[in-house]
Amino acid sequence: MANPFFKNHGPFKIKELIETLRLKDFVIKNNLEVLDIKDLLNSEKGDITFFHSKKYKDIAKKTKASFCIITENLKDDLNKNCIPLVVRNVLFSTSLITSKFYPESLYDNFDDTVNFINDTKFKNTVKSGKNVLIGKNVSIGNNCSIGHNTIIEKNVSIGDNCSIGSNVIIRNTIIKKNIKILDNCNIGKHGFGFFPNKDNNIRYPHIGAVIIESNCEIGCGSTIDRGSMSNTIIGENTYLDNQIHIAHNVKIGKNSIIAGQVGIAGSSTLGENVKIGGQAGISGHLKIGNNVEIGGGSGVIKDIPDNSKVMGYPAKNFRDFLKENR
Amino acid sequence: MANPFFKNHGPFKIKELIETLRLKDFVIKNNLEVLDIKDLLNSEKGDITFFHSKKYKDIAKKTKASFCIITENLKDDLNKNCIPLVVRNVLFSTSLITSKFYPESLYDNFDDTVNFINDTKFKNTVKSGKNVLIGKNVSIGNNCSIGHNTIIEKNVSIGDNCSIGSNVIIRNTIIKKNIKILDNCNIGKHGFGFFPNKDNNIRYPHIGAVIIESNCEIGCGSTIDRGSMSNTIIGENTYLDNQIHIAHNVKIGKNSIIAGQVGIAGSSTLGENVKIGGQAGISGHLKIGNNVEIGGGSGVIKDIPDNSKVMGYPAKNFRDFLKENR
Amino acid sequence: MANPFFKNHGPFKIKELIETLRLKDFVIKNNLEVLDIKDLLNSEKGDITFFHSKKYKDIAKKTKASFCIITENLKDDLNKNCIPLVVRNVLFSTSLITSKFYPESLYDNFDDTVNFINDTKFKNTVKSGKNVLIGKNVSIGNNCSIGHNTIIEKNVSIGDNCSIGSNVIIRNTIIKKNIKILDNCNIGKHGFGFFPNKDNNIRYPHIGAVIIESNCEIGCGSTIDRGSMSNTIIGENTYLDNQIHIAHNVKIGKNSIIAGQVGIAGSSTLGENVKIGGQAGISGHLKIGNNVEIGGGSGVIKDIPDNSKVMGYPAKNFRDFLKENR
Repeated sequence: MANPFFKNHGPFKIKELIETLRLKDFVIKNNLEVLDIKDLLNSEKGDITFFHSKKYKDIAKKTKASFCIITENLKDDLNKNCIPLVVRNVLFSTSLITSKFYPESLYDNFDDTVNFINDTKFKNTVKSGKNVLIGKNVSIGNNCSIGHNTIIEKNVSIGDNCSIGSNVIIRNTIIKKNIKILDNCNIGKHGFGFFPNKDNNIRYPHIGAVIIESNCEIGCGSTIDRGSMSNTIIGENTYLDNQIHIAHNVKIGKNSIIAGQVGIAGSSTLGENVKIGGQAGISGHLKIGNNVEIGGGSGVIKDIPDNSKVMGYPAKNFRDFLKENR
Repeated sequence: MANPFFKNHGPFKIKELIETLRLKDFVIKNNLEVLDIKDLLNSEKGDITFFHSKKYKDIAKKTKASFCIITENLKDDLNKNCIPLVVRNVLFSTSLITSKFYPESLYDNFDDTVNFINDTKFKNTVKSGKNVLIGKNVSIGNNCSIGHNTIIEKNVSIGDNCSIGSNVIIRNTIIKKNIKILDNCNIGKHGFGFFPNKDNNIRYPHIGAVIIESNCEIGCGSTIDRGSMSNTIIGENTYLDNQIHIAHNVKIGKNSIIAGQVGIAGSSTLGENVKIGGQAGISGHLKIGNNVEIGGGSGVIKDIPDNSKVMGYPAKNFRDFLKENR
Repeated sequence: MANPFFKNHGPFKIKELIETLRLKDFVIKNNLEVLDIKDLLNSEKGDITFFHSKKYKDIAKKTKASFCIITENLKDDLNKNCIPLVVRNVLFSTSLITSKFYPESLYDNFDDTVNFINDTKFKNTVKSGKNVLIGKNVSIGNNCSIGHNTIIEKNVSIGDNCSIGSNVIIRNTIIKKNIKILDNCNIGKHGFGFFPNKDNNIRYPHIGAVIIESNCEIGCGSTIDRGSMSNTIIGENTYLDNQIHIAHNVKIGKNSIIAGQVGIAGSSTLGENVKIGGQAGISGHLKIGNNVEIGGGSGVIKDIPDNSKVMGYPAKNFRDFLKENR
């Protein structure tokens, strides 16, 4: 993933990273510079990557990364030119290194770089309400409006013809064209991702963004969290009703319609032209096909193939649901 | 329905409306003026109306409207004095004409007519917090308070003894007496109503209002959408808990109690003295009787008669639910 | 319970309280002063208490209170040194007396005592955004930050190293150390507790606080209501995701993880190390044990013992749920 927003605090010397990982017995001759952390596919020479599941072994064989955070049992599947750093918990270790490169991605304290919009270059180009705040690294297209008390924090790009409501908070988000964000939305904060740890959980970094494609509408009071190692994406012409929660890394296809109070858990992917009834919930890491209809109140806990209509908790074929509940 | 708030941009010549509907082959001699668009029952001479379902045929026979948007198969049921305008999709065509008469009802961009309350006539009559904004066409009764950062957009009437919390946004709403609106509510925006259309959905207008009868309480973070062709109504002395979503056109009777995170989909009607447990959902276009109790977490997908107690998903008789789940 | 925040408007003469309770036939010689209202266990000499259920009879035998609101059938179980005030509805009568001692606990109108933070002693000690408001009786520890438009109303204590987001509203709450409250939360308002009454419900007072123990995180748009006669408590290192609703008197143990859109109804108690999936709901007055896992979408309607894993609506043993839904 290209990380559009967070500042890379690297390069770091590999010996410093080894120390961060507490690899006491690891010996290395050349104290090389490590440039960035990326996934197996996107890594270049000089980068560090991570490899935590057999299903990525084909990519691991070809990765261009110079170093790889890995478990003992996966070492044989790694490109021989890539130096393995063996750890117990790859994701936890990856989190430590990512936090080092991108410390700003860990926390979401309020953005203290903002200014009142009338003190920015947008004073005359954006139609804005009272008390609107704009952070650093913000771009806003033509013919846009921003409602009262709305805070556009740092790292936001808004395309042409967008209408942002009042009391909205946005950060780390790319908003394309012709989009309406209704009042009270909160878009782009980090997801609910951390390593549970007795008495003091450890957050993992969220270096992803939220991307909202053109012609979308996001209802009042909805929350869309940014991704951890990938982006959260709302497809073109997809409409969300009020009080919806979209967790980190979720990808929703275009022309979808999602009714009020729906929740979609982390890393699930939805196809195009998906319709979801009110209050339905979709578990994490699922794949929902194209043209799927999910009845109101459903609880989806497994993948759903294209062109299916489901309802129930757990969600099943719609006809079966009706038959069983006559 | 009497439309209390939106400005009628008519009258329009009938030939202009025919053009809007793209009725190429339609020939009309007199280019009459059309005054307003109303439903079959409320239309007067000079109005245009719409007729899309056999169940309204008795009213259609007697409508006083001069013109009617209609499908071919319903023509015989229309009053002979009313000129039929035959279309394929009555609701879509009605939406086009309604948008022409009431263009402001289509979108809910932030209200740029607001002023700080201290710059309005309410400066000394309303107890208000910091940064309170008041739009045009707003009235506020005696002994009211409005919390910090709250935005009363245009077209709001608030009766005596009302307490509005902080961070609230209200528009197109009639609030009667002795009402408490708690913090972070969003009341009166348009509903989630549109015609799905590949790559570019088409919104339909919402010319209805929200009406909150006396002695109600609305919990924190709740959203109540205004109606499309009718009003959304919360009955007298009905209490809503936090994070509730009431969709467009919903009508709730008096003395009802609705617990946290409940959602009621569009156009459903609830009787008096209805009790709904937390997180329950009610599908759209249903009729829930008087004195109905709906257990927490229920999903109601069909009408419920008076004096019933239901629970489950889908909701069924309460005793049956308990028996089946022992 | 020690009531940390609300002002005691007592003492009141017992004859005045008897009048409030409309006990016409009650005759008392000495018009003693009544100091406070507390529960059976915590009452001291001079206090009035209440006794409404047999299960408290052991405590009732030993209460030190001077007066007790009680029903006829429980009189024999009351300490002989305590004067019984017999009523029909103990909780309603208790509510009347509590309202007399603590009238400020009944309603949650916006706090008009607030000042902009730059006009307070916190100007240089707290890192704050624009338009931050601080009420009376507020303390804030070292190294804290408070986001834009946030309102810390009266009666709030914030410990060291806390990060409060933007658009947050907090009142009557004790926030310990190292806590993150994300944007748009509403914490410490009264619960959804009242006596239903035709055409005019009667609120009961909420003299409890919200207590958030150290190292917690509260997600965007969540609501946590304060308790009525006890406190609402979030245990140490417990993390809440977005759009969660925690009702009055709920107690959650430490090291718990609660996913998005979960709702927990009034007075339920959760143990330590509890994990709850998204959109699950827990009914009121339940006891959930330690190390319990509740699947996403579940509806919990009875107590759950320690170390259980449940799912479904109603929630049942996890394996049974899977077996029945293969």
